[in-house]
Amino acid sequence: MGVGERNLKLTIAYDGTRFVGWQRQNNGPTIQGELEDKISLMTDCKTVLCGAGRTDAGVHALGMVANFKTDSSIPCDGFQKWLNSLLPDDIRVLEIEEVAADFHARISARGKFYQYRMALGGVSVPTERLYRLQLPGNLDLQAVASCLNELPGEHDFSSFEAIGSRDLSYEGGRGAIRRIFSAELKICANDPRYIDIEISGDGFLRYMVRNIVGTLIEIGRGRWAVEQFALLFAARDRAMAGPTAPAHGLFLKEVFY
Amino acid sequence: MGVGERNLKLTIAYDGTRFVGWQRQNNGPTIQGELEDKISLMTDCKTVLCGAGRTDAGVHALGMVANFKTDSSIPCDGFQKWLNSLLPDDIRVLEIEEVAADFHARISARGKFYQYRMALGGVSVPTERLYRLQLPGNLDLQAVASCLNELPGEHDFSSFEAIGSRDLSYEGGRGAIRRIFSAELKICANDPRYIDIEISGDGFLRYMVRNIVGTLIEIGRGRWAVEQFALLFAARDRAMAGPTAPAHGLFLKEVFY
Repeated sequence: MGVGERNLKLTIAYDGTRFVGWQRQNNGPTIQGELEDKISLMTDCKTVLCGAGRTDAGVHALGMVANFKTDSSIPCDGFQKWLNSLLPDDIRVLEIEEVAADFHARISARGKFYQYRMALGGVSVPTERLYRLQLPGNLDLQAVASCLNELPGEHDFSSFEAIGSRDLSYEGGRGAIRRIFSAELKICANDPRYIDIEISGDGFLRYMVRNIVGTLIEIGRGRWAVEQFALLFAARDRAMAGPTAPAHGLFLKEVFY
Repeated sequence: MGVGERNLKLTIAYDGTRFVGWQRQNNGPTIQGELEDKISLMTDCKTVLCGAGRTDAGVHALGMVANFKTDSSIPCDGFQKWLNSLLPDDIRVLEIEEVAADFHARISARGKFYQYRMALGGVSVPTERLYRLQLPGNLDLQAVASCLNELPGEHDFSSFEAIGSRDLSYEGGRGAIRRIFSAELKICANDPRYIDIEISGDGFLRYMVRNIVGTLIEIGRGRWAVEQFALLFAARDRAMAGPTAPAHGLFLKEVFY
């Protein structure tokens, strides 16, 4: 690991379709792996990237953040252009800036903003199939919006956490408690069958957004009453909530610092 | 060719990325070829589809129309579901309906509606890279809108026609004269750097929309004055206009009957 004098912060967008996730692993291509390999090549020094979090296989990002230490003297602008020229076209570095030595993409993060995209009513658009969940029926959007109103504030999200995946040290020892800043339903102005669920918060458990969305879909379809949603928090039981919504509808839009 | 008693009209959406175009040909996969093969399999009869037009390699469609004659008795709804189950997921049949015997997807068409999608200002979004032209700089949108105002009405579009591609018989012997119904610049409400150029008309020459867009980009960049655009019609010379904009930004949105 090259620990040099400069601390560089990267803002990254990617199409998660063909990746097994952000985090470097041996079972397939990863965004972290692609970036580390190319940066190591450029700096002639084995580089480890620190990401703001991990996105799972198939999840997309419009504003992922990562940082790394380097003694390379390449200016940020030139570094960005060169790096993009080496990267595959489904990963783009949007910005590189030099930050204080103590900036840490994960620990310094104050929050994240996720968007989950859906198309309702049997809309079938091949050019959206990799970036928006297409649901055959309609949803009771009033019910979905009512549930989203329950989200802001601090809650124990055990019911929405991927089973067996808790890693207390990773998220600061708070267990499953997270603070949601905002949770909104956006209906697309051009086509009201396109809806986006937008959630920002100070941290997210693994699969948390997708488990919330999967539960909202069940409620929107009328399988459960709206009141059930609030009860899920109290239950702290993953088995009570809905299924995990597919990865391809989820976008990490921004990381706040 | 199976000429039966029913005339079925298909409305089709596709992601043009991996196809060499709509029209069946021997140098690669085509949308027409995929559809004909699957319909022939279902009806046990070699079927030829009549499309409302041809889209070129890489161009997408949200509402392409085609028709075919068949003596199959499969109801439209069941036909659609079965056909979609056989098709690759980058082609979706949105609707099948039985129409009058004299309905002809190309000859009966009163017009078409195209959309060309762009992202300005160096926006680089990997999840849009296959469906929106990403331009490094900005465009003078007022200049682009002024040019679009020149389009409605009947004009000789020789200057915007692909060289050597004229096929008079194909478009009804009108030469290069086409009537444009409307031509508008749409700025995306969520992100003003996303702009769409929407053009509808009674017919389009090969590459016509992409040649118009390529010319608008040159004018938007200040290479030519706005006044140049009107002069291009009078010149009737393809060499005078701008380059052909890339295929992946273009969507055939609708065919009017």
